[in-house]
Amino acid sequence: MRVERDSMGEIEVSVTRYWGAQTQRSLRYFSIGNDYIPPEVIQAFCILKKAAALTNQELGKLPEDKAILIIQAAGEIIAGKLDGNFPLRVWMTGSGTQCNMNVNEVIANRAIEIAGGKMGSKTPIHPNDHVNMSQSSNDTFPTAMHIAAAIAIHQRLIPKVQKMRDALQAKSEEFAEIVKIGRTHLQDAVPLTLGQEFSGYVAQLDANLKRIESILPDLYELAIGGTAVGTGLNAGKGFAEKVAQSIGEITQLPFVSAPNKFAAMAAHDAIVMASGVLKTLACSLMKIANDIRFLGSGPRCGLGELILPENEPGSSIMPGKVNPTQCEAMTMVAAQVIGYDTAIGIAGSQGHFELNVFKPMMIFNLIQSINIIADSCNNFTDFLLVDLQANTDKINQYVEQSLMLVTALNPKIGYDKAAEVAHVAHEKNLTLKQACLELGYITAEEFDQIVVPRQMAYPDV
Amino acid sequence: MRVERDSMGEIEVSVTRYWGAQTQRSLRYFSIGNDYIPPEVIQAFCILKKAAALTNQELGKLPEDKAILIIQAAGEIIAGKLDGNFPLRVWMTGSGTQCNMNVNEVIANRAIEIAGGKMGSKTPIHPNDHVNMSQSSNDTFPTAMHIAAAIAIHQRLIPKVQKMRDALQAKSEEFAEIVKIGRTHLQDAVPLTLGQEFSGYVAQLDANLKRIESILPDLYELAIGGTAVGTGLNAGKGFAEKVAQSIGEITQLPFVSAPNKFAAMAAHDAIVMASGVLKTLACSLMKIANDIRFLGSGPRCGLGELILPENEPGSSIMPGKVNPTQCEAMTMVAAQVIGYDTAIGIAGSQGHFELNVFKPMMIFNLIQSINIIADSCNNFTDFLLVDLQANTDKINQYVEQSLMLVTALNPKIGYDKAAEVAHVAHEKNLTLKQACLELGYITAEEFDQIVVPRQMAYPDV
Amino acid sequence: MRVERDSMGEIEVSVTRYWGAQTQRSLRYFSIGNDYIPPEVIQAFCILKKAAALTNQELGKLPEDKAILIIQAAGEIIAGKLDGNFPLRVWMTGSGTQCNMNVNEVIANRAIEIAGGKMGSKTPIHPNDHVNMSQSSNDTFPTAMHIAAAIAIHQRLIPKVQKMRDALQAKSEEFAEIVKIGRTHLQDAVPLTLGQEFSGYVAQLDANLKRIESILPDLYELAIGGTAVGTGLNAGKGFAEKVAQSIGEITQLPFVSAPNKFAAMAAHDAIVMASGVLKTLACSLMKIANDIRFLGSGPRCGLGELILPENEPGSSIMPGKVNPTQCEAMTMVAAQVIGYDTAIGIAGSQGHFELNVFKPMMIFNLIQSINIIADSCNNFTDFLLVDLQANTDKINQYVEQSLMLVTALNPKIGYDKAAEVAHVAHEKNLTLKQACLELGYITAEEFDQIVVPRQMAYPDV
Amino acid sequence: MRVERDSMGEIEVSVTRYWGAQTQRSLRYFSIGNDYIPPEVIQAFCILKKAAALTNQELGKLPEDKAILIIQAAGEIIAGKLDGNFPLRVWMTGSGTQCNMNVNEVIANRAIEIAGGKMGSKTPIHPNDHVNMSQSSNDTFPTAMHIAAAIAIHQRLIPKVQKMRDALQAKSEEFAEIVKIGRTHLQDAVPLTLGQEFSGYVAQLDANLKRIESILPDLYELAIGGTAVGTGLNAGKGFAEKVAQSIGEITQLPFVSAPNKFAAMAAHDAIVMASGVLKTLACSLMKIANDIRFLGSGPRCGLGELILPENEPGSSIMPGKVNPTQCEAMTMVAAQVIGYDTAIGIAGSQGHFELNVFKPMMIFNLIQSINIIADSCNNFTDFLLVDLQANTDKINQYVEQSLMLVTALNPKIGYDKAAEVAHVAHEKNLTLKQACLELGYITAEEFDQIVVPRQMAYPDV
Repeated sequence: MRVERDSMGEIEVSVTRYWGAQTQRSLRYFSIGNDYIPPEVIQAFCILKKAAALTNQELGKLPEDKAILIIQAAGEIIAGKLDGNFPLRVWMTGSGTQCNMNVNEVIANRAIEIAGGKMGSKTPIHPNDHVNMSQSSNDTFPTAMHIAAAIAIHQRLIPKVQKMRDALQAKSEEFAEIVKIGRTHLQDAVPLTLGQEFSGYVAQLDANLKRIESILPDLYELAIGGTAVGTGLNAGKGFAEKVAQSIGEITQLPFVSAPNKFAAMAAHDAIVMASGVLKTLACSLMKIANDIRFLGSGPRCGLGELILPENEPGSSIMPGKVNPTQCEAMTMVAAQVIGYDTAIGIAGSQGHFELNVFKPMMIFNLIQSINIIADSCNNFTDFLLVDLQANTDKINQYVEQSLMLVTALNPKIGYDKAAEVAHVAHEKNLTLKQACLELGYITAEEFDQIVVPRQMAYPDV
Repeated sequence: MRVERDSMGEIEVSVTRYWGAQTQRSLRYFSIGNDYIPPEVIQAFCILKKAAALTNQELGKLPEDKAILIIQAAGEIIAGKLDGNFPLRVWMTGSGTQCNMNVNEVIANRAIEIAGGKMGSKTPIHPNDHVNMSQSSNDTFPTAMHIAAAIAIHQRLIPKVQKMRDALQAKSEEFAEIVKIGRTHLQDAVPLTLGQEFSGYVAQLDANLKRIESILPDLYELAIGGTAVGTGLNAGKGFAEKVAQSIGEITQLPFVSAPNKFAAMAAHDAIVMASGVLKTLACSLMKIANDIRFLGSGPRCGLGELILPENEPGSSIMPGKVNPTQCEAMTMVAAQVIGYDTAIGIAGSQGHFELNVFKPMMIFNLIQSINIIADSCNNFTDFLLVDLQANTDKINQYVEQSLMLVTALNPKIGYDKAAEVAHVAHEKNLTLKQACLELGYITAEEFDQIVVPRQMAYPDV
Repeated sequence: MRVERDSMGEIEVSVTRYWGAQTQRSLRYFSIGNDYIPPEVIQAFCILKKAAALTNQELGKLPEDKAILIIQAAGEIIAGKLDGNFPLRVWMTGSGTQCNMNVNEVIANRAIEIAGGKMGSKTPIHPNDHVNMSQSSNDTFPTAMHIAAAIAIHQRLIPKVQKMRDALQAKSEEFAEIVKIGRTHLQDAVPLTLGQEFSGYVAQLDANLKRIESILPDLYELAIGGTAVGTGLNAGKGFAEKVAQSIGEITQLPFVSAPNKFAAMAAHDAIVMASGVLKTLACSLMKIANDIRFLGSGPRCGLGELILPENEPGSSIMPGKVNPTQCEAMTMVAAQVIGYDTAIGIAGSQGHFELNVFKPMMIFNLIQSINIIADSCNNFTDFLLVDLQANTDKINQYVEQSLMLVTALNPKIGYDKAAEVAHVAHEKNLTLKQACLELGYITAEEFDQIVVPRQMAYPDV
Repeated sequence: MRVERDSMGEIEVSVTRYWGAQTQRSLRYFSIGNDYIPPEVIQAFCILKKAAALTNQELGKLPEDKAILIIQAAGEIIAGKLDGNFPLRVWMTGSGTQCNMNVNEVIANRAIEIAGGKMGSKTPIHPNDHVNMSQSSNDTFPTAMHIAAAIAIHQRLIPKVQKMRDALQAKSEEFAEIVKIGRTHLQDAVPLTLGQEFSGYVAQLDANLKRIESILPDLYELAIGGTAVGTGLNAGKGFAEKVAQSIGEITQLPFVSAPNKFAAMAAHDAIVMASGVLKTLACSLMKIANDIRFLGSGPRCGLGELILPENEPGSSIMPGKVNPTQCEAMTMVAAQVIGYDTAIGIAGSQGHFELNVFKPMMIFNLIQSINIIADSCNNFTDFLLVDLQANTDKINQYVEQSLMLVTALNPKIGYDKAAEVAHVAHEKNLTLKQACLELGYITAEEFDQIVVPRQMAYPDV
């Protein structure tokens, strides 16, 4: 054990760890649950610390040798070399101060180590005075939230949603000529093609991709430079803009200094909004996954229009059963994301004065939502969509049986007579054509000319 | 117009209305939306005012003639004779003060009128000094919340849920011998009877009825007697207990004085909990309604196991279409109740110090949930369950086709071989028996002896 | 009573009402709760019916005389002349079919009346064949949802949010030079100006206004032309585009035909997203309202930095009490909107195949959210913000007492020594300056030069 | 690597792991997020597997030697000896089949190892035929859900909530004589004691403890014995009851066989309800934590009535700042639990036919809620409540200044005059007594006799 100290006094830390006094205290006071600050947030913090050191050096506030040490240590963390040194839980102080200090302490001690100094000595690198120079937890944590969210959306979410969208588009094209019965209210309706049905899913994901893009500018605005309450006390002129620019260079994303720091620290509306977009996407995904599993239900007692790939045995008691498990994972994920959205909304509404103190849980939930949606879109594509097949026998059989083709007769015989035809067919178990002829509303030739499922699916072609 | 006054000064009120200055002010300041304080709450308030007048008379604080006037006026409101005098919206002060004053003012003015006095004169009945004697909005409003909720649960919710439960039970018995295919993961599974399936719904509602009963004791606890902050200042010893008893006599429900008034005014956990129970019931109802509409899907391209009564034309374009509209109303109601539950939970968490100021919206939402659930249970029963029929042709057809009857072979040939049988039957489009014989795992006689759907549904009989 | 009929047969309707058979049936089957289809939706429907009649005439499908009759009747409804003829509840069929038919029936009967015909005769105007020509409930209802939402957002929401934003901006400027203590974690922090604090609120509303604008393009996309399942069967080529254009001309909003009708009917992601934006705005409003009521708490035992206008007496028992009632209405509204958002999200996730059948409740909730937010922003501005004053005595007193001004010493003496100063001052009940001098870290002159609240609030100026 | 096989064929598994083919497949297909099946569920499964083996032996279906092997292997897992063998994520098949199989496979392979057999050989212990004998995932997973929930509630939740309740009770007693100003609407109100204020918190937790107890009977009902669809096919008569009894003996909790297996597998209303209770508790905790942090706000510019223990440095930039971090962790936890409740409710509403396939996520969320509430109650008690102190100087100062003591004059001079007194005092910055005398409504002696804060707090004593 070695001794570390902070403004509360001394505390012992294992020599195998790089963290300092405040991290160690947090471990004791916040031994709550098993949810840890996401690595995405630690990475974002290190990007920020790197950019801050560069900026402070450039502004002449931090000697070059100190800046280099900080940058190197931060880089090692980003590269994963100090994993295991970020043990703090989400359920900590709501400003994330201890998370900021954890990063400051690890960077400082590793920098000291590189410099050949004594860990815990705060020399030559002090976690507050140097690593946290011109910063506060109150501006660094929300900055790290935005960096982490923007990167995760860019690198994980968008590519995976796009991938799923493209797979659905491919299926939509593949199924373009398969005429099937439509279902509204779950009841038989007029026909469309399976490709058209899938085009609806594509359109939903396309719209969601646009929505996702639309929230990025909000996330690119960084709180950094606001320091303790948003005024930028102790930060120095130009610090905010330079750091944001530097972060932009490191991440290749167009980050900027938030024009109003007070809002950026006291509220997290951009996170609430981002979650709202993820919630919307989750609703789309639940619809799509539900459709596919219902259309794939059977094999003999369900709708049976789709054949889903068999990935794993479905039942520990019913041999031979195969289940729509990717749909199930997807719908569980969707419900979870809606739950996270509720939590994020409440948290976002609860800022007081100059600070919202629900920061760690807000970003934890957002990152969770991003990751589980991205992963499930990915797996849903690879393990379900790619090998999804249409059961054309079943699909054709339904089209032939359906009574709702009667709708094509509306312009010819009017709604009321068409309804009568459908009722007679249903009650007497006739085909539509038989019912039409029996009622004498139309000739067989007229019927065959008008009631053509393919034409009904593409009426304007 | 006549002049009314309160501690803020004078204000004009239409002579056609009984309300006074504070109600009139509220109309101006809280012209928000179109949601009104529910009549259930006004009624509950009048029950309380009646009980308070009786108690104050009994305690010698209120002269008999004044008590009689208040009781008469309150009684007229309960009887609906002064409808149109309670125009305040939900989105008012969070203590509901103006609602309490609206009731106090209308009672006072109507009492004055009965007594031949001049409305607005506060003589012989003063809205604060007499109608509100020994009370505060802070204890009367939560008291009215509990009275309104308890009555609504007793008189509307429980009977309607019980009615639906009984209708489901009748169907469960009617369908007891109809063997059908089970579905897990939406996929074909081993058989059960339609009666067993419905018995699950009955069990869900039975458990919910128990849950509803379990929350009533919490609601019977009344905040009355706490006055402004819970200490009971100005209420007088014994007031709380006597009023609660009197309310119990009027309503025939076992109301009591809440043992801790501080909690009863500063938090509304009993309302949050009641909403949680309604949410649970809503989840059950969504499951039941979803099942019934999916089982009734068709008529020719769906599962088609149930035949729902045709109540109204289903489509303005597709003639002859009949839709599961009662299920749709029910599931919309269920989703709405879950939404109200979120709102109530947030509101319930936001009390500060001696008062929670989300009172009107909490009780509004709870009453809404109670009413829409009760009504939809009622209509679902009358217009769907009572005339619901089983489509036995379709049901039998599924049972005969299903591959999952193979499960009955597990104890005989083991899981792995049974799985092989199912796979072979599926791939070669064989019956299970054919597949068994082809694979040679079992004789035809053994198969017929073991694979008996009715026995599989009642394996222990 | 007169006899009306539909495909289910005859039914009696009061001669005082214009509606027909399907509306009458709905009244019986859907007597659930007291929530009615919002007038905004009825208006939107009439705009649509007008545009459809114009288009059908233009396309040569509807004779001019019939078109004129429909347009006149629809116009009368928009003008409010047929109020009382739209009695249907939200908890109906999930496609809103009966709402569409209610509009069709009233327009038809009123048109018949104008033409001197016999109501209920469907001559010369048939509710399905003429008023609903080329349409289905499945495409008209979502079209009406989007029209209603877009108009409500344009005409009510944006102006009221903008009004509140402008009032906050005016206060931000008025308070620009009032230096006050900041509070983070509710604890004393470094100073800022009251104007800066309010600038945060302005920034929040500005961002929300942008978010609101960002969702309008989604809402401008109309499902019309999709008819029953999205294929446009019976609509006719060009119908969708022409109707959308006509609606655009009537409303002066840039509506277009939705590029994918399948998504537009089977899902309502645009509504879910719109609700997500309203939820985000609600979170901002809760933060702002909470801040203002806490800063206005007192008058003698609270924070007391703001003086709120006295609108109404605050207590029925505590004389002279004035409460932050506009804040309370606002926070109740905010919590309600979050609840509606949960309900809308669930509903939005539950579409199946070609139709989402939670339409009436989704638009009901969205319109509710829009209206209660708009109204409370309006009243919050008029009855609170406009006359809001700063209590500069109290504000100055806090600044003078605060220990957190010590932060200004960080760059001079470092974090650890500054912390020591604060601790000593706190424990010995000294001023910061006294503590500094006692510890000898800095001279009185240096202290006075560095610790200047106004400079701390505007450090870069 | 060794080869494992299931009905889908062969697959390679690391020789360092005990799991089999289905676990290995799940790792591939469900690489979604980082949420793992909680250890509480694995433990519950092993308790069940033990009880099932005992019962199958007793029923003569399983040879004693096999039963002993299964029981030993299950015991080792419970003892934590096979940690690292349960790698499956929450976002898997919604029945939790793969989790059941993971347990079956690990038990089987470890049993084989003990018996000296060859792992993967399924001899002498087969994961399906022996470990899963008479069971299905569909009944075992919900059984494990209930066992895990009941144990976690008993062993973690109730003791920690009770601990916090007792600490609050101790403070309530300690603070019994500290008269303080009440606050309603955040505004000054009539006095109460700090002990009374805390008694409200105690009452809230007491009621929540009752609510928690009330849901346990529901959780004690086990789905086991229902097998695939609830009929109990292949389970054998008496199996359900004997297993439940055996589980009761192992856990010392009164588990029983659920009377209706169909409901127990197709719905999880008991879990939804349990979450509703946790949500209610979360709302209480948010209220309590908010009160304490606001009452402790300051040290010089807040309410300052409470002094919270200083556990850790509060700010990385503001030296000497101490924050109410335990309150922050608690309120974040509370918001999270409300979010989990939303997710659980949605999931609970989405069962279809014989199965709800949101099982893993429902129990994951419930266990999360239980654990984070239990832990935060524990830490809140140890690190905040135990050393919480009243700042009596500040408290007294407020009582002396408050205008709301005027309420004590209501019974003497009436509401309207009392209001005038308060207004005059407020406007002229007088004490209440001065205002009374100036207005001449009462003598100084009368004032002193009536306006006694201690008496106002305990009016009936």
